[in-house]
Amino acid sequence: MVQAAVMGYGVVGSGVVEVLMEHQSSIARRTKEEIGIKYILDIRDFPDSPFQEKFTKSFEDILNDDEVRVVAEVMGGVHPAYEFTRQLLERGKSVVTSNKELVATKGAELLKIAKEHNANYLFEASVGGGVPIIRPLSQCLAANDVIEIAGILNGTTNFILTKMIRENMSFEDALSMAQQLGYAERNPAADVEGQDAGRKISILASLVYGKHVYPQYVHTEGITKITLEDVAYAASWGGVIKLIGQVKRLDDDMLDITVEPMLIEKSSQLANVDDVFNGILVRGDSTGDVVFYGKGAGKLPTASAVVADIMDCVKHLNKRKYFDWADCDGSIIKPYEETVFPFYVRLQSSLSKQEVTEKITSLLLNAREIVRANAADNEYAFAVDEMTVADREKALAALTDSGIRVLSKIRIADL
Amino acid sequence: MVQAAVMGYGVVGSGVVEVLMEHQSSIARRTKEEIGIKYILDIRDFPDSPFQEKFTKSFEDILNDDEVRVVAEVMGGVHPAYEFTRQLLERGKSVVTSNKELVATKGAELLKIAKEHNANYLFEASVGGGVPIIRPLSQCLAANDVIEIAGILNGTTNFILTKMIRENMSFEDALSMAQQLGYAERNPAADVEGQDAGRKISILASLVYGKHVYPQYVHTEGITKITLEDVAYAASWGGVIKLIGQVKRLDDDMLDITVEPMLIEKSSQLANVDDVFNGILVRGDSTGDVVFYGKGAGKLPTASAVVADIMDCVKHLNKRKYFDWADCDGSIIKPYEETVFPFYVRLQSSLSKQEVTEKITSLLLNAREIVRANAADNEYAFAVDEMTVADREKALAALTDSGIRVLSKIRIADL
Repeated sequence: MVQAAVMGYGVVGSGVVEVLMEHQSSIARRTKEEIGIKYILDIRDFPDSPFQEKFTKSFEDILNDDEVRVVAEVMGGVHPAYEFTRQLLERGKSVVTSNKELVATKGAELLKIAKEHNANYLFEASVGGGVPIIRPLSQCLAANDVIEIAGILNGTTNFILTKMIRENMSFEDALSMAQQLGYAERNPAADVEGQDAGRKISILASLVYGKHVYPQYVHTEGITKITLEDVAYAASWGGVIKLIGQVKRLDDDMLDITVEPMLIEKSSQLANVDDVFNGILVRGDSTGDVVFYGKGAGKLPTASAVVADIMDCVKHLNKRKYFDWADCDGSIIKPYEETVFPFYVRLQSSLSKQEVTEKITSLLLNAREIVRANAADNEYAFAVDEMTVADREKALAALTDSGIRVLSKIRIADL
Repeated sequence: MVQAAVMGYGVVGSGVVEVLMEHQSSIARRTKEEIGIKYILDIRDFPDSPFQEKFTKSFEDILNDDEVRVVAEVMGGVHPAYEFTRQLLERGKSVVTSNKELVATKGAELLKIAKEHNANYLFEASVGGGVPIIRPLSQCLAANDVIEIAGILNGTTNFILTKMIRENMSFEDALSMAQQLGYAERNPAADVEGQDAGRKISILASLVYGKHVYPQYVHTEGITKITLEDVAYAASWGGVIKLIGQVKRLDDDMLDITVEPMLIEKSSQLANVDDVFNGILVRGDSTGDVVFYGKGAGKLPTASAVVADIMDCVKHLNKRKYFDWADCDGSIIKPYEETVFPFYVRLQSSLSKQEVTEKITSLLLNAREIVRANAADNEYAFAVDEMTVADREKALAALTDSGIRVLSKIRIADL
């Protein structure tokens, strides 16, 4: 019997305990070891829990118990999860986590400590919830050069966009529906502003390119500015708007990494990833496009990924898995202003249509007008060929100067 | 440096050599070991190959060379691949393969031999080509009870069906196009009759349920009887026809395993898996539906999966991965006649429409007519609620007796 501990008895933590208990015999059969839960750490009391005797409020109980070999850190947040994880790894205990914030901000350091103490630090649940992505990337696709990863990595914003696209619901209404259904927090900033997706693409990029891409290196835009007009123009253009976390290796070996809303064509495999589902596309030089799809969050999907990592640790108690990335100062990241991509732009002007079109075609490359039914008077939209963000911003400033107001601009993806 | 050998220098074998050579440095970085190719076994001569000095026609060269620790068997077919693999494993060499026929027919035995000799037998490339599925199923989803797996597992038939659905091309024309494009063999039976998909669902079922489900236990139907009329009715019903390999665990713990064409709803994640792509849906009790999508065949995708297995073997030279399933006499398989599912039926009769409808509703449960434009006179189609295959056959025989000809019947999937 190998003893484990669970730190944090919230949604995911209680799911981890549930999955470990309910699948006890099949887990033992698959790992060739029984896995017990010796401690559950939480500052709260759970008087009705059947696991009363396992609860502790003292981290030291877990740290100092040599019987505990694997710990699931499902507390969330950086502190004290970081300090706890570090101490556990220094004692040679393996740690598994769903804590994307911690992995994204401290991954390189924690993986290094794990390596020095012959322990494992695994985090399959930190990206994609129950969708397998970390292990396939690091193992199954290991013989590939990964050219690009692009994913719908945040279920909350995908739910909101789906409601806007399918039911013509406003952003605000869709957000409050998401909150009522428990998909969005009362303070939804981390989701709707893109930080959550930013942490996840940070983790995937670090894993694939072997250097820690910190979240602050990722250009991050959320979906709060997306309007139903944009959604309607996207449909006329032949696509949908999705919040995409993307990393591409450029020809100069620098990384173009971003989280932002993007127009994607209807025929893309990501276009049909709706509601709270996640979809992650991995473009490899040998495999071509591989897509992973499933529930990116939720108690049991996330918990099952945590438990799979616990099982993997138990199978590798005395052998480390090869999993690390170096620290990185951000010099491999292409500044956002220098990145190049086609985009959609929506404009408003009291100038005549001919004047607007002339201005547009003189300033923007190969601008094709997008026409939609019921557009407001004086409103225009165009799909424009690729240019750097810096050049785009100059051109859009010149448009503004000549009496054309820029209402929105959205990247067009090649997925 | 760890030495490997490649047996078979056909499409996949030459791809394995190419991927290993082209990614040499990144592979070495990831496995912490350089991987060399010491031998390439093939009975043919390749006078123009740059790897001249590696070719051998003698299997014994590989078997007797203690330096060779990992062998890629990409010869295909059961003999002599089986004998070679057995001998290699008995010498403690690990073997990786893309040979689905061998894994499906001899997997239990070869895994047992591997275990006895502390070697690995890995076969990620045998299902889904470059799409990761074996490892995610055995590791990432290990904390789940897998309730069902359903997949588009054969790219050739999916290409043919896509042409029939999208371009109204006949089966024969689509097949000869597939042959011209190199997607189908000159003798296409293994693909179009469903055996290839049957071997793959055998492997997935064996892996997940821990008992060897031999291909002969799998009810197997191909797509040769599918007509453009069926395709059109499927569209009117709101779906598409796909060749699905499926295994479900029933309430009595028996397995319903089959390969057959199925009607699936347009909204299913598998409905948009087109052309030569594969898509595999895994329904877990904790994760819900997870879908894997990508190129299921082809030189480089398949080769990259083989190379990923080689890398995994190199990382586990002295530690076996937990991977085995027991032999099985087929008693866990629910006989096809006793399986239960809804279905579509297309009929022809010179009886009046009212008479046909009366017969149908008296014999079949909750039959809803499917209407389509341009249907032939005297042709009818219905979607019918679930009944056992035995009951269905009885009812259809009674229809035939009363002057209603059954033109086709296709399972309706719940995906």
